Amino acid sequence: MNATSNAFPQGRWWVAGFAWELGEKPLARTFLDHAMVLFRTPDGAVSALEDRCCHKELPLSMGAVEPRGLRCGYHGLLFDHGGGCIEVPGLERIPGRARVRAYPLRERDQILWVWIGAQDASPRDEPPAYSFHSDPRYTFGGDAFHYDAPYQLIHDNVLDLSHLGYVHLKTIGGNPGVHTSAQLITTSTPNRVRVVRWMPNSAPPPTYTAAWPFRGAVDRWQEVDFSLSHCEIWTGAMDAGSGSLEDPQRGGFHMRGFHGVTPETAHTAHYFWTVATNPHPDKQDVTQLVVQQTALTFEEDKVVIEAQWRNQCRFPGRSQLYIPIDDGPTRARRMIDALLREDAAVTR
Amino acid sequence: MNATSNAFPQGRWWVAGFAWELGEKPLARTFLDHAMVLFRTPDGAVSALEDRCCHKELPLSMGAVEPRGLRCGYHGLLFDHGGGCIEVPGLERIPGRARVRAYPLRERDQILWVWIGAQDASPRDEPPAYSFHSDPRYTFGGDAFHYDAPYQLIHDNVLDLSHLGYVHLKTIGGNPGVHTSAQLITTSTPNRVRVVRWMPNSAPPPTYTAAWPFRGAVDRWQEVDFSLSHCEIWTGAMDAGSGSLEDPQRGGFHMRGFHGVTPETAHTAHYFWTVATNPHPDKQDVTQLVVQQTALTFEEDKVVIEAQWRNQCRFPGRSQLYIPIDDGPTRARRMIDALLREDAAVTR
Amino acid sequence: MNATSNAFPQGRWWVAGFAWELGEKPLARTFLDHAMVLFRTPDGAVSALEDRCCHKELPLSMGAVEPRGLRCGYHGLLFDHGGGCIEVPGLERIPGRARVRAYPLRERDQILWVWIGAQDASPRDEPPAYSFHSDPRYTFGGDAFHYDAPYQLIHDNVLDLSHLGYVHLKTIGGNPGVHTSAQLITTSTPNRVRVVRWMPNSAPPPTYTAAWPFRGAVDRWQEVDFSLSHCEIWTGAMDAGSGSLEDPQRGGFHMRGFHGVTPETAHTAHYFWTVATNPHPDKQDVTQLVVQQTALTFEEDKVVIEAQWRNQCRFPGRSQLYIPIDDGPTRARRMIDALLREDAAVTR
Repeated sequence: MNATSNAFPQGRWWVAGFAWELGEKPLARTFLDHAMVLFRTPDGAVSALEDRCCHKELPLSMGAVEPRGLRCGYHGLLFDHGGGCIEVPGLERIPGRARVRAYPLRERDQILWVWIGAQDASPRDEPPAYSFHSDPRYTFGGDAFHYDAPYQLIHDNVLDLSHLGYVHLKTIGGNPGVHTSAQLITTSTPNRVRVVRWMPNSAPPPTYTAAWPFRGAVDRWQEVDFSLSHCEIWTGAMDAGSGSLEDPQRGGFHMRGFHGVTPETAHTAHYFWTVATNPHPDKQDVTQLVVQQTALTFEEDKVVIEAQWRNQCRFPGRSQLYIPIDDGPTRARRMIDALLREDAAVTR
Repeated sequence: MNATSNAFPQGRWWVAGFAWELGEKPLARTFLDHAMVLFRTPDGAVSALEDRCCHKELPLSMGAVEPRGLRCGYHGLLFDHGGGCIEVPGLERIPGRARVRAYPLRERDQILWVWIGAQDASPRDEPPAYSFHSDPRYTFGGDAFHYDAPYQLIHDNVLDLSHLGYVHLKTIGGNPGVHTSAQLITTSTPNRVRVVRWMPNSAPPPTYTAAWPFRGAVDRWQEVDFSLSHCEIWTGAMDAGSGSLEDPQRGGFHMRGFHGVTPETAHTAHYFWTVATNPHPDKQDVTQLVVQQTALTFEEDKVVIEAQWRNQCRFPGRSQLYIPIDDGPTRARRMIDALLREDAAVTR
Repeated sequence: MNATSNAFPQGRWWVAGFAWELGEKPLARTFLDHAMVLFRTPDGAVSALEDRCCHKELPLSMGAVEPRGLRCGYHGLLFDHGGGCIEVPGLERIPGRARVRAYPLRERDQILWVWIGAQDASPRDEPPAYSFHSDPRYTFGGDAFHYDAPYQLIHDNVLDLSHLGYVHLKTIGGNPGVHTSAQLITTSTPNRVRVVRWMPNSAPPPTYTAAWPFRGAVDRWQEVDFSLSHCEIWTGAMDAGSGSLEDPQRGGFHMRGFHGVTPETAHTAHYFWTVATNPHPDKQDVTQLVVQQTALTFEEDKVVIEAQWRNQCRFPGRSQLYIPIDDGPTRARRMIDALLREDAAVTR
């Protein structure tokens, strides 16, 4: 294990990107301090290798994908999906130690998942499904963002709904007062944190009214399900009184957010997000609108979170004021602390 | 006190900017390693707070000014002029420790002054006046420069008049020989250093002739009054023989420079300057010309001083050759060393 | 000696640039961690001084060349070719310690050579000649590249001909198979490494056919002569069977490369290269073409080598796979290790 591995829970699946990101060229990405190259061979198979040729250390991500694997762009060594070197130009017999580390990589529901644990260990489970990427009622879009901030600051943000009224006034926020007066219910298990807020009979925010023909006030909901690797956020609204907020099959305008937050290093992170929505028959191109508005919203978050991190670095070692809206984020941090303690106990 | 506070004299007023810089938006600035946000409420009152929300540490300078104070742009906490939190959205009772540090800030003669000392101490005096910003005989302009160099290198520069002939040939310099042959008189008290040079019967430099209809040779003067927080530089010229250089009411072309040099960090500084001049009745727009020429001149200094600092970092620990023109700068450095020793004695 | 001097062999001539780079303005360059200013006075004499005025430490490279030497751009101190200060404006008597270090600098065959050793030592030999810059059969061009990578990674590259088929496919590479199947003969002495590869009856690469009217297959050669300060690479081709590859006077298309690789710091380097060619009478402007293609080729190398270095920094302390094509580079590294051991023995 490398020096900083204790900063991240080990032996787990993390989001590595989206299926559509792996085309003809290899893709360089670092997860949990492991610099990798992801690639897809013409037969569709995907792989993640250490992004370093074992010969002269050029990043393999500067190489070229071939039917049998990935060829280094300096001296032409060819590596297969398992990280073994299968060709050294000019050499008859390939040395046994000519290989690079391979990481388990899976593609499921258009999400790429990478497993990072001890070098000789293998995953005992498969990465989770995500049905809304293939649900016929929904259409979706998304993007891969990079953050100059630690991943847990993004957790804080997605588990905290009160910032919408100050950071996202122009998109999904709406009136700040609505957010802060609505009741917040936070629950948790050892592996999950759930934050729910219902805002009955409230004014729909700009993105909502642009996407759905509400008649007036709405019954609005925000339901956040957090796990280590990703967060599912179900938000939406229906005409006030047109259904029950407790009904999982309720109608109206839905936004189903997938938020895969994967640490890159101790101080930087990847944020892989999609938003799926149920287009209203009278509204054309609503998915594109919702995705664009969501992207704008997440760019607002990025500006705030990166500034927050720079400021935490300017004021090191200072304590923060705790207020009740911090309940969800605090539970998520405790959950991760417990996982890190478990890892430390195993390593000891 | 933070780790580097010993680098700067404590318990003193420093220039924080100019009155016209504080408009509707808060202004982020760091002085003596203290990161602050300056703001002006609609009633005109100005304040300086620590630029860090006590909740999640976002810079308050990313927030919004309201009639009662400054509201954080993440979760909406509102802080008053004294740094107390007067509103936490969603909370009835505000925790007593919800506050941020406030720094004494004054506005006087269009200059903003900030006092930086121990956290629980208060200033015993008021910042100095500067009459030339309201003297009807003068009009002025100026700017706020940022230096990637320690503040004392700027002191060296303003107290050293011999560089004019090499750095500022095109503006206020004139013939190098004039500067180096003229007598320099340096005097000092524990809190002041004064450098005076008279250049009787010399050729006026380009900026002078552009601003004033001299008949030919001039009697020229340069008088520098240095104190810790700022330097007042009175330069000018009158037609040769038309008056006495010893007469404080002498006529001719005057430039009254205000140079507020405030350390930002140990290695960076703010340079707040204005230049006031007495426009000749036959010359239109002379103030604008003088301010523009002065800005060009100070940009020349900035290029030199920042290059000097980068070079001092490339050649660490090397001694410098002392020559007589260094008398003024050396006295200023001794003055600051004495203040730092006083501070150290108090802290011990 | 400074802290990192042990990283580089001492008391030797290194390439400092080309004659045509020294015009009216001084040139700032660092070699082996020694920051220097190079300049040429109007009489044609060239010098290298420490790039730091002994007064206030401004880089002398910001100053102005005068007939008698180089004048500092801050306070006007004037230094002669030997580094002595010969004028301090305003001072009658120049202090004896007003001087800066001078480095032996020579101009030979349009190459500038600088000698770097102990401060009080002098070179016992003269820098080498390079005849192809004045050979009437050849015309040449070149450039000065800067590398964000240690100099020995560039040695690896010039001594390794097998990368041509992967990095330089579009220019001088040609078919990768040709390179890897051809026999490589590596020989060395204590001060030289020589790598020769002949590719008889092979297809000429794009640059070759653009520059020379070959009839078809060619007998091609690559001959690399490496010494510490520079590498001479003779490559070329003649119509297959039209002469002997063992004949030093053989005809056909010749490219004579000069590759001066000088460390700037432990992690950066200068790469001064020229390529001389013998233009075919039927091909106009072939030199310009060959120089442009060579520049493209070397830019491809630069991209690879800088990426390699960044990756080596990402994966510190990892061992590399050795394969037979590494023989030449390995001998060069051993040669330099031996020189460093000699230096250490002298210093001890």
